[in-house]
Amino acid sequence: MTSAPHAADQSRSAGRTSAPNVAIVGVTGAVGQEFLRVLEQRNFPIGELKMLASARSAGKSVAFRDKTYTIEELTEKSFKGVDLALFSAGGSISKKYADAAVAAGAVVVDNSSAFRMTEGVPLVVPEVNPEAIEQAGIKLGEKPGIIANPNCSTIIMLVPVTPLHKAAKAKRIIVSTYQAASGAGAAAMAELEQQSREVLEGKPPTMEIFPFQYAFNLFSHNSDMQPNGYNQEEMKMVHETHKIWNDAKVGVNATCIRVPVMRAHAESITIEFENPIDEATAREVLRQSPGVSLMDDRESNRFPTPLDASDRDNVYVGRIRTDLSVTDGRGLSLFVCGDQIRKGAALNAVQIAELLL
Amino acid sequence: MTSAPHAADQSRSAGRTSAPNVAIVGVTGAVGQEFLRVLEQRNFPIGELKMLASARSAGKSVAFRDKTYTIEELTEKSFKGVDLALFSAGGSISKKYADAAVAAGAVVVDNSSAFRMTEGVPLVVPEVNPEAIEQAGIKLGEKPGIIANPNCSTIIMLVPVTPLHKAAKAKRIIVSTYQAASGAGAAAMAELEQQSREVLEGKPPTMEIFPFQYAFNLFSHNSDMQPNGYNQEEMKMVHETHKIWNDAKVGVNATCIRVPVMRAHAESITIEFENPIDEATAREVLRQSPGVSLMDDRESNRFPTPLDASDRDNVYVGRIRTDLSVTDGRGLSLFVCGDQIRKGAALNAVQIAELLL
Repeated sequence: MTSAPHAADQSRSAGRTSAPNVAIVGVTGAVGQEFLRVLEQRNFPIGELKMLASARSAGKSVAFRDKTYTIEELTEKSFKGVDLALFSAGGSISKKYADAAVAAGAVVVDNSSAFRMTEGVPLVVPEVNPEAIEQAGIKLGEKPGIIANPNCSTIIMLVPVTPLHKAAKAKRIIVSTYQAASGAGAAAMAELEQQSREVLEGKPPTMEIFPFQYAFNLFSHNSDMQPNGYNQEEMKMVHETHKIWNDAKVGVNATCIRVPVMRAHAESITIEFENPIDEATAREVLRQSPGVSLMDDRESNRFPTPLDASDRDNVYVGRIRTDLSVTDGRGLSLFVCGDQIRKGAALNAVQIAELLL
Repeated sequence: MTSAPHAADQSRSAGRTSAPNVAIVGVTGAVGQEFLRVLEQRNFPIGELKMLASARSAGKSVAFRDKTYTIEELTEKSFKGVDLALFSAGGSISKKYADAAVAAGAVVVDNSSAFRMTEGVPLVVPEVNPEAIEQAGIKLGEKPGIIANPNCSTIIMLVPVTPLHKAAKAKRIIVSTYQAASGAGAAAMAELEQQSREVLEGKPPTMEIFPFQYAFNLFSHNSDMQPNGYNQEEMKMVHETHKIWNDAKVGVNATCIRVPVMRAHAESITIEFENPIDEATAREVLRQSPGVSLMDDRESNRFPTPLDASDRDNVYVGRIRTDLSVTDGRGLSLFVCGDQIRKGAALNAVQIAELLL
């Protein structure tokens, strides 16, 4: 127990006082790149840093703080000496390599959907259920394990809806999303840009990522359709809300739509509560909620837009109003925007890692 | 009473057997131009045709069928001999000139919001409440008067929702819109295009119509905010639904959002019913409903997009599914797209005119 730097294996057995050794899995992706920005901006303490990606990217260079790192190919042996592994390379990579990271002694914060619904794996939004990590007993350097980062749409919904839930007990949530290209990765963002150029030039749009024109259009989320008529993205919002709130009774009805916006999601949310809650109370609750920025200026018609939320940490909330279609004051509607890459992915994962320090 | 052509004033007093004399007010606008296309495509019978617009456009030429027309300046004297006046030049023009048209003996079909909620003015979606015209006693050439065309978002919602309402009695509708540029006119469409070019070139976007960046962004509808926290567009969906259905008890909660799409609106709609209705029944009801095209292919994840609905007459409906957040089979969700300029405006108005023939 000392504040002097240690080799990873020593510090691990002695409890955490030094900076953890960190691995980033999928460092070349949109979220991987955002991990680097967030870790740097938040001055996250890092001992050794490993940049991991597929063989295709191995050997390339990545800058972080004032050093240049060479990307290494991800293998099962990549995690020797690693305390904290931030995964964002898709569910199949997480399924293949997360166990190896845990076996090597690391805590994995996984941005994919691979383990979100796995029993014993905490699913965490730090503003909502930080206690889930302690309940699972996971500790950096002492008790390795996997912590799952929720789906971006779930995170962006629950940051503002949870404090309202605590105030008046939500019983039903109806949400329609306006989801950005970034949720489908950097290639989807590039496709939106390329298609927009092509359409403006009167050329046929190139369609590689999505089977429809995306520029100047929108479409039902491209995740797999379930037998109940909801797509996977929508069912994630249902199941993850149940797990994060530890309440399988709250009704969640989601419609997930992709819109031609680059990197921030918007959501139109209507909530029914057990107890009455008025607009002023809701606004005051949200004003005091961590991770929320109010932008609710009716006089100048100024409410959140995806561009307001882009590159920002907080979820922007506006259009707070009593639901006109319920008569007993137990309904509210909101319109929220949050950065999909940041709070919807990289920032939330780094905030989870901060809880471990 | 003869089938031979008559001068307008003669045919008017004798009952309609010949083609009506038609005036188009606001012919240079996006909807005005669409009036011409729809009248031509539907082979609408026209005696004399007057193209009316502001002094700024007077003297310009407009082609229709195989003739060229000179645009005349709109004045109170423009309606002499006119049987049918299609107005789409904004609410203030309608308020100023509709009475003159009626005084001259015309039936006005008004696309603005000026008279929609006026007692005695029928508000008509032909698939929904064609009987309202007869109830008001309005007859071409016999009983002049004003018929209002509903708001585009209301029309596009009610074409599919009304047959479901007839089947299971809707008690609450929660709708989030994804509205196209065209709803704010041709200049807004041009601004979206110009801004998209500018953003792709790394230039600051020109903002003249809207106070926000529109390209690659979205925002709460720009209509005036009401004291209850709902904007005018949203309140139109509430009040117009009540009037068209002649049912002020149905709850309607709307969130209206403008998205960077050119000319078709999308709407995510969740409906609670008095009576249970399952997906198969709902699908069959919609399959048989006039003005509706089903596009609901779960296997290939193929549902309506604004581009599918663009330049089409029908409202496209998909994502028909049981609402997961109600447990008693009394809830459905849908995702619909309809052409804002066409079914949301010009086509609906011409269909109203066809009811008059």
